[in-house]
Amino acid sequence: MKAETKPQHLDERQLARAYRGRRALITGGLGFIGSNLARRLASYGARVTVVDSLIPEYGGNLRNLAGLEGVIQVNISDVRDRHSLPVFVRGQDYLFNLAGQTSHMDSMVDPETDLEINARAQLSILEACRRHAPEIRVVFASTRQLYGRPDHLPVGEDHPLRPVDVNGINKLAGEQYHLLYHQVHGVRSTVLRLTNTIGPRMRIKDARQTFVGVWIRALLEDRSFEVWGGEQLRDFTYVDDCVHALLLAGATEAAAGEVFNLGGPPPVTLKELAEILVEINGRGTFQVRAFPADRKKIDIGGFYADWSRIEQALGWRPRTGLRAALRRTLAFYRRERGHYV
Amino acid sequence: MKAETKPQHLDERQLARAYRGRRALITGGLGFIGSNLARRLASYGARVTVVDSLIPEYGGNLRNLAGLEGVIQVNISDVRDRHSLPVFVRGQDYLFNLAGQTSHMDSMVDPETDLEINARAQLSILEACRRHAPEIRVVFASTRQLYGRPDHLPVGEDHPLRPVDVNGINKLAGEQYHLLYHQVHGVRSTVLRLTNTIGPRMRIKDARQTFVGVWIRALLEDRSFEVWGGEQLRDFTYVDDCVHALLLAGATEAAAGEVFNLGGPPPVTLKELAEILVEINGRGTFQVRAFPADRKKIDIGGFYADWSRIEQALGWRPRTGLRAALRRTLAFYRRERGHYV
Repeated sequence: MKAETKPQHLDERQLARAYRGRRALITGGLGFIGSNLARRLASYGARVTVVDSLIPEYGGNLRNLAGLEGVIQVNISDVRDRHSLPVFVRGQDYLFNLAGQTSHMDSMVDPETDLEINARAQLSILEACRRHAPEIRVVFASTRQLYGRPDHLPVGEDHPLRPVDVNGINKLAGEQYHLLYHQVHGVRSTVLRLTNTIGPRMRIKDARQTFVGVWIRALLEDRSFEVWGGEQLRDFTYVDDCVHALLLAGATEAAAGEVFNLGGPPPVTLKELAEILVEINGRGTFQVRAFPADRKKIDIGGFYADWSRIEQALGWRPRTGLRAALRRTLAFYRRERGHYV
Repeated sequence: MKAETKPQHLDERQLARAYRGRRALITGGLGFIGSNLARRLASYGARVTVVDSLIPEYGGNLRNLAGLEGVIQVNISDVRDRHSLPVFVRGQDYLFNLAGQTSHMDSMVDPETDLEINARAQLSILEACRRHAPEIRVVFASTRQLYGRPDHLPVGEDHPLRPVDVNGINKLAGEQYHLLYHQVHGVRSTVLRLTNTIGPRMRIKDARQTFVGVWIRALLEDRSFEVWGGEQLRDFTYVDDCVHALLLAGATEAAAGEVFNLGGPPPVTLKELAEILVEINGRGTFQVRAFPADRKKIDIGGFYADWSRIEQALGWRPRTGLRAALRRTLAFYRRERGHYV
């Protein structure tokens, strides 16, 4: 990007217009981020199809699109099924490619399944785009896990990539396929490296998606929860801000071929996060304990992202403070917990 | 490694002693580098088993182990067959893990096969080691392709990793699995990033393994050959030097968990290489032509490796000059060409 040209940033109205009447496919669209994105796209008047495997250990939940039956087209299927992919991508204007195995621990116990979903299926998806929807605009949800243990904070996109678990290795391959298919085959892809995303519709049944989920569940069930370590800094993106970034990336032509970190308001330690949660909830207890040995080995220590590149390129910035994010999330699960545990 | 302690380097005699009577498994052991390694190990008195798929497009050739029937145990099978792997690794002291799909172009045409061999099968191999041979010492053959187009020359191990083709992405995943299984599961692995390796028993039928192969074949068949580009610098490791590095890496305990570049004598441009080859052969012609469009996109430009890290850690350095390497290679194929085309 040349220094002298100020990039044009899309405002909310322009964003809505960019997606109105357009066809968008969301893999993992019954999941946490995917369903929030689907809802926003539908509110813009886009024609949305979601594909989701509804594998019980993953993020998909039919409740996530409740109230939009008949508006959003839901197709239960697995992105590992390579033969159905051409049908899905044909005729789509946008692909938000969010399907993935997210559990670091599961990736260590069953590495081949992680590889199948996070790497092999991504190749199949991109091959389907290349052959059946060469004009499609792709946004891929990658992860800060690619960086491994940071050399320094905050972590910018040029930080060395040294994943510390199988999940990070496979997500890196998935990300690189997207950039390669842009570079070599002209499939216009943008990569967003997500950090911890929180908000309504996240998985709270267990820690497979985010540890914040089980904390919130424990709070609402009047149980104590555990904070491992406690002094690690972490940043948190509210899901609406994450959705905003996905939409900006898809609608901005200059974002094709680029990699952007997402981030959040100033980072907090996990212990501080726990204290804020208890405070907002009005009650609750937690214990700080040492990392279990098997998790320590794949822990990345403190992390927070430098998100200045996407701010400059797309005008994105986190708009939701941490307390507001946690308050809205808690309020959602006070009403909806029964559908998520 | 502490600055004040000079690492102990193994000399040839110590190396031979380290492998004498030990059990070594070589995946891809009927291939170019694997068979040269198998021969050396056998000469040291190691008990060698090679596993090779003999897929016609890959490097395996039964001729490569001619004369060692009954000395080296040959098992034709594919590392993608995960169920046979425990049988192979059990009881082995060393695993030289060289099986791979090496063609950059093939990886772009059939990316899933490349992924299956260079990534998925590597996970299976490491899982087999972890479960059935946790004490095994592993040496993995990686590639300079991981670096992509260099920012600067020579390229050290800390150069950013930006593969430009599917093969590079999958080999990167394969390499990272090895380092991860060392780090987390204690499977002691060393990664060597190979550059162009040349010598007897390389594939000369086509350019799937190295372009030098088809040049030599053309020379010996009195046909003109093509040099694409011509001004790119490249470095070449003679196969005996590569084998020496593999053996040093396996026998040096401090090499576990490390990544080392291999390299060669001072680099030459491709045009210079062609001229030297013609001169050594005593006759021959070639044409310099522009890169074909589909290959240009995945070309890495000039490359040569900084191999000072392995020199310092293991005492390795290329011992064979480029002219000597080419002379021996040409002499081999004058005798053996019939078995390789």
